[in-house]
Amino acid sequence: YGKNTIKFLRLHREGKKHFVKEVEVCTHLRLTSAQEYLEGNNSLVIPTDTIKNIVLVLAKKNGIPSLEQFAIDICNHFMTTFCQVAYVKTYVQEVPWQRLHENGVPHIHSFICVPDGIRFCEAEQCRNGPLVVFAGIKDLKLMKTTQSGFEGFYKNEHTTLPERHDRILCGELFCKWSYGECKDFDFDCIWNKIRECILEAFSGPPDCGQYSPSYQKTVNCIQMLVLSKVSQVQVIEVVLNNTFYNVLDMKNLGLTNDKEVLIPVEAPYGSCACTLGRK
Amino acid sequence: YGKNTIKFLRLHREGKKHFVKEVEVCTHLRLTSAQEYLEGNNSLVIPTDTIKNIVLVLAKKNGIPSLEQFAIDICNHFMTTFCQVAYVKTYVQEVPWQRLHENGVPHIHSFICVPDGIRFCEAEQCRNGPLVVFAGIKDLKLMKTTQSGFEGFYKNEHTTLPERHDRILCGELFCKWSYGECKDFDFDCIWNKIRECILEAFSGPPDCGQYSPSYQKTVNCIQMLVLSKVSQVQVIEVVLNNTFYNVLDMKNLGLTNDKEVLIPVEAPYGSCACTLGRK
Amino acid sequence: YGKNTIKFLRLHREGKKHFVKEVEVCTHLRLTSAQEYLEGNNSLVIPTDTIKNIVLVLAKKNGIPSLEQFAIDICNHFMTTFCQVAYVKTYVQEVPWQRLHENGVPHIHSFICVPDGIRFCEAEQCRNGPLVVFAGIKDLKLMKTTQSGFEGFYKNEHTTLPERHDRILCGELFCKWSYGECKDFDFDCIWNKIRECILEAFSGPPDCGQYSPSYQKTVNCIQMLVLSKVSQVQVIEVVLNNTFYNVLDMKNLGLTNDKEVLIPVEAPYGSCACTLGRK
Amino acid sequence: YGKNTIKFLRLHREGKKHFVKEVEVCTHLRLTSAQEYLEGNNSLVIPTDTIKNIVLVLAKKNGIPSLEQFAIDICNHFMTTFCQVAYVKTYVQEVPWQRLHENGVPHIHSFICVPDGIRFCEAEQCRNGPLVVFAGIKDLKLMKTTQSGFEGFYKNEHTTLPERHDRILCGELFCKWSYGECKDFDFDCIWNKIRECILEAFSGPPDCGQYSPSYQKTVNCIQMLVLSKVSQVQVIEVVLNNTFYNVLDMKNLGLTNDKEVLIPVEAPYGSCACTLGRK
Repeated sequence: YGKNTIKFLRLHREGKKHFVKEVEVCTHLRLTSAQEYLEGNNSLVIPTDTIKNIVLVLAKKNGIPSLEQFAIDICNHFMTTFCQVAYVKTYVQEVPWQRLHENGVPHIHSFICVPDGIRFCEAEQCRNGPLVVFAGIKDLKLMKTTQSGFEGFYKNEHTTLPERHDRILCGELFCKWSYGECKDFDFDCIWNKIRECILEAFSGPPDCGQYSPSYQKTVNCIQMLVLSKVSQVQVIEVVLNNTFYNVLDMKNLGLTNDKEVLIPVEAPYGSCACTLGRK
Repeated sequence: YGKNTIKFLRLHREGKKHFVKEVEVCTHLRLTSAQEYLEGNNSLVIPTDTIKNIVLVLAKKNGIPSLEQFAIDICNHFMTTFCQVAYVKTYVQEVPWQRLHENGVPHIHSFICVPDGIRFCEAEQCRNGPLVVFAGIKDLKLMKTTQSGFEGFYKNEHTTLPERHDRILCGELFCKWSYGECKDFDFDCIWNKIRECILEAFSGPPDCGQYSPSYQKTVNCIQMLVLSKVSQVQVIEVVLNNTFYNVLDMKNLGLTNDKEVLIPVEAPYGSCACTLGRK
Repeated sequence: YGKNTIKFLRLHREGKKHFVKEVEVCTHLRLTSAQEYLEGNNSLVIPTDTIKNIVLVLAKKNGIPSLEQFAIDICNHFMTTFCQVAYVKTYVQEVPWQRLHENGVPHIHSFICVPDGIRFCEAEQCRNGPLVVFAGIKDLKLMKTTQSGFEGFYKNEHTTLPERHDRILCGELFCKWSYGECKDFDFDCIWNKIRECILEAFSGPPDCGQYSPSYQKTVNCIQMLVLSKVSQVQVIEVVLNNTFYNVLDMKNLGLTNDKEVLIPVEAPYGSCACTLGRK
Repeated sequence: YGKNTIKFLRLHREGKKHFVKEVEVCTHLRLTSAQEYLEGNNSLVIPTDTIKNIVLVLAKKNGIPSLEQFAIDICNHFMTTFCQVAYVKTYVQEVPWQRLHENGVPHIHSFICVPDGIRFCEAEQCRNGPLVVFAGIKDLKLMKTTQSGFEGFYKNEHTTLPERHDRILCGELFCKWSYGECKDFDFDCIWNKIRECILEAFSGPPDCGQYSPSYQKTVNCIQMLVLSKVSQVQVIEVVLNNTFYNVLDMKNLGLTNDKEVLIPVEAPYGSCACTLGRK
């Protein structure tokens, strides 16, 4: 049990310059007891309202140095303060505020919301177990308009899909990775590096791209690049929910459509998920 | 990998009387191979487009006798047809069309959408493993305006929640249960019986209700009643996401608010989840 | 300017029996002044926080006898209290809680949310003008699986739609009507009567239905029936957003699909709107 | 009546470099006839399916030079082709794809979705009337963490809001403006200039900002700046839906909160709308 979508803004000031971190936190606990379920005895139950208060107090006291450090602080607090807590998990998601710029000059206190991929993290701990930290990006929508195909697949009497060697690849990416023991990590720097790896593996070199023979291979390329470039990542999960773009047949309208007009098919959509770790 | 939100309507006619079943199906596979990820070799990959076709062909051929039977049929088809499939899972969710009535007379071909709890089911199978069938209800919003409290909970310096013995209990329920070996089950009948159990355990007798000392206890009551009344259920999971109703303090407006005007607090919200099986 | 989505629950008790009305209110004002826009002089501006307080105070004091009466009360309050208000409009929408029943017995304090069409109303008044009251229903999803066609329409080189005399008609209805001078209206009774008219006009007699040659004609039938049966309605606007169900061509899958499997097309969707008054 | 959410991607190639424009189009017509409503005579009705085809054919033939030009083309087509059309309105909204960059180098065929304000336009025409073109931006979320207050407002017994001279101003902006006669406008250039004006008027100089005494004044500042800097704009409408950030009182948790932890209040929310034209 726990509290979901604890939303707040943490404002930090350095002189006249303001820094904002708006987050949404979910914190869940498992207690050692069962009497609250069986007997309605609440004596060990930490109210979800108290959970919320603790999250807000920690934000006030420590600030949010990084999403990951904040999630770690919350887990530590519950583990060290309450002996009835058997397990704690905290999810933190960021509202993507970016500093406004005027003619290249950063504004000291104005921000714009730019949701081009949402950063999140998760920390969890069982009593007597290690603290495990995950980070990730979700709602990242990418498209490449060529250098993608799907050929040589399994066929039988239910196959109607034609083979294609030049299609649009468009999808919403969810990536989540785990860190090993977190010693003095610069979580912000690592996260930005991983985001760059994802974009690079998806799109290939800017002047020619890289051919994708399937969603599966693209997912694997992303994972391989992140694992090779970012040593702190132990395991990486990638989910690619793809939107198919159908080349509209315009023959009955007297026109030849050379992949110029395409219709997005939002339902049903294909999904491809894979988790990859190190040896 | 697989295909999500395959939406279709299956229309069945008996003379002039029409029966509709509109569903949304997600079918996911795990293959025995890894070459599609590592090498871009698609020779064993069943396209998600083919998955969609198979779902639609089975709907056409067999109809949808019940959601559960349809999900079972899909799993069986993939397991028996494709030796490269290591695991298959199918989720089926129903659009809640209800037959219209005029002055108590059922209409032969007109329907209204009544989303007071969405029925769903899931079937999954590993090769050489048993077929496991789940069913459930989600998005079921219930409220009781009294006979609910929360007292005697754990307190410390972060506790600001007052004790209450008469509050509103309002929540969105998610219930999912597993069946044992499914021999000639009347899935529709069982599902309706479980829905009644949930409503009864939540609300208590119509003339007086039943006191709930916590969300945890209400969740447990629902589980205990279902397990005691419906022998086919093996394990039942209940998630109760509750909306808190705050009694508005109107003193500074010169009024005494005797729990007459309450403000729903949608974020953050508490959540309580528990899974209970038989011994 | 004004305050949107003021959400609250008004609880009314008669002995042990509870009655709930949960609503969402939007109240907008136009002032006689412009100085707040031009000069930043706020001396005549009623804060939106005060607007919210007034709505809640009126709910506490008067209860919500009907949505319409509550909206009228709010408009009256602003017009009679603040001479700087040039115009006021209030929208009230109901959360569709229905009393639970156990074996036909109504429960004294338990409710279920059944969103099969959302009731709303609107009242507006210009200073020195009449109070105008609208009521309506929205998000009402209806379907008939036959007795609908579309033939004899205008054709040219861009026409690819075949003529059909037996298709599914499915849509989401929005209906809004105005009342004349509201003298002792039983708004709840009238609203229920109009809802019945809408269902009847859409579906036709329960044993045979009634043929719809177009969305336009169905919209007109609804309007004509309401105007003929409910004398209090002056003008009625109907919007029908229809979901097309495409009969899936299964020939390339070796099957003949006799309108048994249909695919809902959610985008793009057709829309048909018409406003009809009395002579 | 008409067709809503006609979604498609228009792909344009210049050598190996690709350009994408994904849009969502709604086109509505009013006919000179009423017989389709009254008699079910469809002979003058242009099916919404044909409307969709025409939009797609024009996209194929003309491309989408700018959203505005495309909307104008659609209106012109309906007016010149169908004498039964009395009025046509077309709304076009853009999916915010941006070209990916790797180390500053633009990618030839890869894009990322960046929804920081959605561009849209609208063109409408009555037969024998002028073509009117609107453009706009919506879902633009901005925040300034100081230089905002609200003081000196009207007070009475329902006022509980304290005066504030340093609060957070956060809102979602909707701006829509009309152009006069569109002679050789560079619509893309004008739109970008207006977006810059909106950001500048909202935030003020980057090193100090500009004090906002109310939402009303901020709305007016935006309008005045756009009208003064962009001569092509005739009338501009601005709607500012603001999210209030509540400074959490942490006294009962033993802490002094100096505007460091703030809770967003999403419902109810204030709204301020104003339309301003030239003399």
